[in-house]
Amino acid sequence: MERIVVVGGDAAGMSAAAQAARSGAAVVVFERGAHTSYAACGLPYFLGGVVGDVGALIARTPEQHRANGIDVRLRHEVVAIDLERRSVVVRRLDDGSQIEERFDQLVLATGGLSAMPDLENINAGGIFSVRTIPNALAIDTALRERDAHHAVVVGAGHIGLEMAEAFLLRGLTVRVIDASHHPVPTVDDDIGALIADKVRDAGIDLRLGVPATGFGAGPDGWISTVRTDNDELAADIVVLALGVRPNVGLAAAAGIAIGPTGGITTDGRMATSAHGVWAAGDCVETHHRLTGRPVTVALGTHANKQGRVVGINLCGGDAVFPGVIGTEVTKFRDTEIARTGLSEAEAREAGFSTLTATIEAGARAEYYPGNASMSVKVVAEAESGRLLGAQIVGGEDSAKRIDALAVGIWNHMTAEEFEQLDLAYAPPFAPVWDAVLVAARKVAELV
Amino acid sequence: MERIVVVGGDAAGMSAAAQAARSGAAVVVFERGAHTSYAACGLPYFLGGVVGDVGALIARTPEQHRANGIDVRLRHEVVAIDLERRSVVVRRLDDGSQIEERFDQLVLATGGLSAMPDLENINAGGIFSVRTIPNALAIDTALRERDAHHAVVVGAGHIGLEMAEAFLLRGLTVRVIDASHHPVPTVDDDIGALIADKVRDAGIDLRLGVPATGFGAGPDGWISTVRTDNDELAADIVVLALGVRPNVGLAAAAGIAIGPTGGITTDGRMATSAHGVWAAGDCVETHHRLTGRPVTVALGTHANKQGRVVGINLCGGDAVFPGVIGTEVTKFRDTEIARTGLSEAEAREAGFSTLTATIEAGARAEYYPGNASMSVKVVAEAESGRLLGAQIVGGEDSAKRIDALAVGIWNHMTAEEFEQLDLAYAPPFAPVWDAVLVAARKVAELV
Repeated sequence: MERIVVVGGDAAGMSAAAQAARSGAAVVVFERGAHTSYAACGLPYFLGGVVGDVGALIARTPEQHRANGIDVRLRHEVVAIDLERRSVVVRRLDDGSQIEERFDQLVLATGGLSAMPDLENINAGGIFSVRTIPNALAIDTALRERDAHHAVVVGAGHIGLEMAEAFLLRGLTVRVIDASHHPVPTVDDDIGALIADKVRDAGIDLRLGVPATGFGAGPDGWISTVRTDNDELAADIVVLALGVRPNVGLAAAAGIAIGPTGGITTDGRMATSAHGVWAAGDCVETHHRLTGRPVTVALGTHANKQGRVVGINLCGGDAVFPGVIGTEVTKFRDTEIARTGLSEAEAREAGFSTLTATIEAGARAEYYPGNASMSVKVVAEAESGRLLGAQIVGGEDSAKRIDALAVGIWNHMTAEEFEQLDLAYAPPFAPVWDAVLVAARKVAELV
Repeated sequence: MERIVVVGGDAAGMSAAAQAARSGAAVVVFERGAHTSYAACGLPYFLGGVVGDVGALIARTPEQHRANGIDVRLRHEVVAIDLERRSVVVRRLDDGSQIEERFDQLVLATGGLSAMPDLENINAGGIFSVRTIPNALAIDTALRERDAHHAVVVGAGHIGLEMAEAFLLRGLTVRVIDASHHPVPTVDDDIGALIADKVRDAGIDLRLGVPATGFGAGPDGWISTVRTDNDELAADIVVLALGVRPNVGLAAAAGIAIGPTGGITTDGRMATSAHGVWAAGDCVETHHRLTGRPVTVALGTHANKQGRVVGINLCGGDAVFPGVIGTEVTKFRDTEIARTGLSEAEAREAGFSTLTATIEAGARAEYYPGNASMSVKVVAEAESGRLLGAQIVGGEDSAKRIDALAVGIWNHMTAEEFEQLDLAYAPPFAPVWDAVLVAARKVAELV
């Protein structure tokens, strides 16, 4: 029987393992941590008290995986890959001993690493990232055991905003600082400005164009301030949410190709440059369907799909991960934020000439109670009218509308074609002209 | 200047009028009622007290239309069309006088008529349909002024269920009877059974396979019972919700072609068989994009789109109404119900060999609070795997997911292509595998 070794027990690794085990392969998973298959994207909700128990984030325990025939070994860190010998070197973290494990095929699911700037006192106590269950438990402990009043979140992307909300829910005063000029780096400036308003409306001190330049620590080594060019901001706890980069050290050391964005190079079947070695999840580089360019996107939905593709291909199947179009969604308190395709800035940078339209519309019939409004921005290619991207900021029931636009963009629809779609209408769900149709129409009129 | 006459001031007629007036045409609208441009689909929500004021359902008043240069004449009923003389005969309902009005181009927006079975005592007091503001006001008055306890709704389609909910909200006991074997005629039996459970869970006495055979009336001529083959059901008020048929008497009398489904025949540009005569809204027949067959669908969203197409084409433009794929959504209390494309039964009847899959999934991440579950049924063509239709019944945030499926079906996607889509994921909005992707995958595995 073929022996499959999976490096990393995250969603991508375990999806691959589960799929391969179903086909009867012998699968060993080495995970350096103490958990498998958990939803890292749920950690801010645990910290905000929205999800009561961190255990709820674990989709499948190691025991459940073992019951499915997967040999999961926790606190086992793969420290080297030998492609010649077809083996990995594994350190048992509990006793420091090392073993060598042979493989016929190898799956790299080494995940991502939180970006950590090289700043003074970066290793002070009270500075956290939010990637893992141990990270989250450490933050939770700090909040419980220290008399924390002032939180500073460095980075105003999805995780940064989710953590800002969590700290608000825990009763802290919250500052968010970001080097860029609007929150959520993947939307355009105009849409970002709408988000900034919502963040400030929540009582958060949002400072944009302000990078962190260092940290101050007290005599006990615990964080006391976050430094910027002009200020020293009091901080009892700090979260760094500066993005995630692919964790590729192991792959690179083995001579496996790393792409220009820093992720492991994969083809559509999620094969790496090394024969019989596959990769999936936050550690890989895939391609953007609109630009054709390589991208790395750390998102659970891609990790799960890629893992499944690897699991199928490992066993002789022929599955393809088709790339991404950059669909994202998040929520900040009552504000829903979504985007798909290319932003206006991204589209121009990629060489498209663009037309855009932004509309305001309700999520329900005008007269129906609870009708929250939303802004929808649509980006189309100037010559053809083909939809390139869309962004939504709005209240309840607005963000998931991005999916209809995502399917339209995936299918190369023009704005004019899109506005004619037969979408669901009834007063509790939409106006007679759904917001996404109105936005498409407005940009179609410009073509 | 060209003179445009519009027959009917509903959403379709006023959309056409508004579009034409914007292009500078002289537009006269004859409306037999006292209102224009109101949302008939909002009437059950007014009756349930969800929408407080019936005036809120009026998107634009006659005065607002007149301010936009449209000559709206209320309580003017067009009683004949003379295609030779290019004129209509109009009766002024206030004084019974008749005038003749010349047109260069004519727009028929005569709407729909509630189906009225020819049964004993059908004209008793207390038997209502729910198509117009006067209908709704009459029901409201009856509920206020009579000591109504028992409501019977005949017909368990969208309007029937919406009215059943409205009567519950008004404190009545509610019976719903329907000749067919499940509520909502446009879904399959298995999905209909799920809806029936929800209706009964609400305390409604739902009787299926039970047509109304007549009505009993008291000495004052007011409804007292609804008769079925086996029963006599006490009724203080009755709503007939047996569907809507196109109102085409005027067009037919003028020799304008009526299609096999009973609606006015239109081409893609919404032109009728008569030169310079257009039609839009509930009175027309359009085509189903999947079967290529003619269909009549009484839905505000199509009426608005068709009206706009007519308004553009009237003035020399070239707009096309692309047909429908049968997307529908409604809500019964907390249960959301949606469908698009062909049901399994419709697909088979249209000659497709089908595969189907039905899955249960959550609307949010499993651990996220308020995660309601939904059933998603997907119908695909057996040979190609092409998606033909989908149905959703579920809790909060489930039904609008039908739009992603509608866009996929519109674009001829196969289930296998669909399951690879990059849809929006974050814990408050979806599991990592969105319900619609899981359903597509399950049917793709059968191909």
